Amino acid sequence: MTRLAGSPGPHVFVDSLENMQLADDDLQHLAKSLRMRDGDQLTASDGNGSWRPAIFASSGMLKSAGEIQVVAARPDALTVAFSLVKGSKPELVIQKLTELGIDRIVVLAAERSIVKWDDAKTAKALMRWERIAREASLQSHRVRLPVIDAVVPAREWLARPEVSIAHFGGQPLTTRHTSIAIGPEGGWSDAEAEASTSHITLGSTVLRAETAAIAAGTLLTAAAAKQ
Amino acid sequence: MTRLAGSPGPHVFVDSLENMQLADDDLQHLAKSLRMRDGDQLTASDGNGSWRPAIFASSGMLKSAGEIQVVAARPDALTVAFSLVKGSKPELVIQKLTELGIDRIVVLAAERSIVKWDDAKTAKALMRWERIAREASLQSHRVRLPVIDAVVPAREWLARPEVSIAHFGGQPLTTRHTSIAIGPEGGWSDAEAEASTSHITLGSTVLRAETAAIAAGTLLTAAAAKQ
Repeated sequence: MTRLAGSPGPHVFVDSLENMQLADDDLQHLAKSLRMRDGDQLTASDGNGSWRPAIFASSGMLKSAGEIQVVAARPDALTVAFSLVKGSKPELVIQKLTELGIDRIVVLAAERSIVKWDDAKTAKALMRWERIAREASLQSHRVRLPVIDAVVPAREWLARPEVSIAHFGGQPLTTRHTSIAIGPEGGWSDAEAEASTSHITLGSTVLRAETAAIAAGTLLTAAAAKQ
Repeated sequence: MTRLAGSPGPHVFVDSLENMQLADDDLQHLAKSLRMRDGDQLTASDGNGSWRPAIFASSGMLKSAGEIQVVAARPDALTVAFSLVKGSKPELVIQKLTELGIDRIVVLAAERSIVKWDDAKTAKALMRWERIAREASLQSHRVRLPVIDAVVPAREWLARPEVSIAHFGGQPLTTRHTSIAIGPEGGWSDAEAEASTSHITLGSTVLRAETAAIAAGTLLTAAAAKQ
């Protein structure tokens, strides 16, 4: 489990659950956008699996309203990897996978990825993606931020034994599958497709890449919830 | 089944499969963006379940390359209903549900929907949504366009016996479920929540409304594909 359900109020991240000082942006957001007042209930998390009920204070120093609770990480991180694409689509995919509760998000450089980035551009994008994942984690009350790996060569990633690739004619997804990789619009190269021996189907061959990534996230978390 | 898989070339809609005259926009798209040349293969559909293999001609009059084939509609239309929301989110949801293969898309006016539209605005939006659904149908090689109903009062819709509502603490989705309704960000009103006796869970209570709609579409089509 990566998120809270049923605790009242909004959710916020703090550096320390012993000393719950809000970041300036978060204080602004809670006080201005959400119109919280002294004494209102919320939950605070360290983004690393621990959280506690808390009471809002306009000073920005939250008060404790209960013990620290720890939510264990899944033994096998639910992972979706997708290929770097043009435009704002990586943002959409990262936001949705975070909301859905995916533990690890991997951005791949595939041979047929349209986009090629240098290190500076990648570092800048990673900062933006981590900010999007943090915001989506707040919105969806996660207590553990997703890990984002960017940018990883696809062939290397696909050779990992736990990784299944979404591919026409593959097997239906089962609870054994925890890590799915989605190809670029142009498809995997032959070398990439052959790097993984586990091929799964998402029920269709003609989803846009970002839709396939969101569908994979939905199916992985739904299968995990049934266990 | 609502879409083709494995037939070569792009996919296009025509008014008649006996007399396959391309619309000007489609001819432009195929000739300019996709750089098709006389003799290239594609598939043409009437958007109502029938399709045939065809050969591109720069005159805009496609040549037949095989018999007309008919894909039967599902006996129970896979249906996702969602509440009208602000901004471009209905567009995103309609695009993704179309790609995923949902048969019927219903836009609801819930009591707590933020947006209230008059008839003129609704008619204009419906035209835009149908254009988006058509484009997504081309991209995903559907042979049957989704039906879009807009805007339907939520309470009326939720009272239909086949409709399940996504609700905290509901049952897991099974193949018996074919029609799911997603509430607005502010949740269903009590009267709306009580209008349906079938409550299903999407595995989480804190998805954004548009993410919940896409997740519902993914789970419905995945369940249908297993049958």
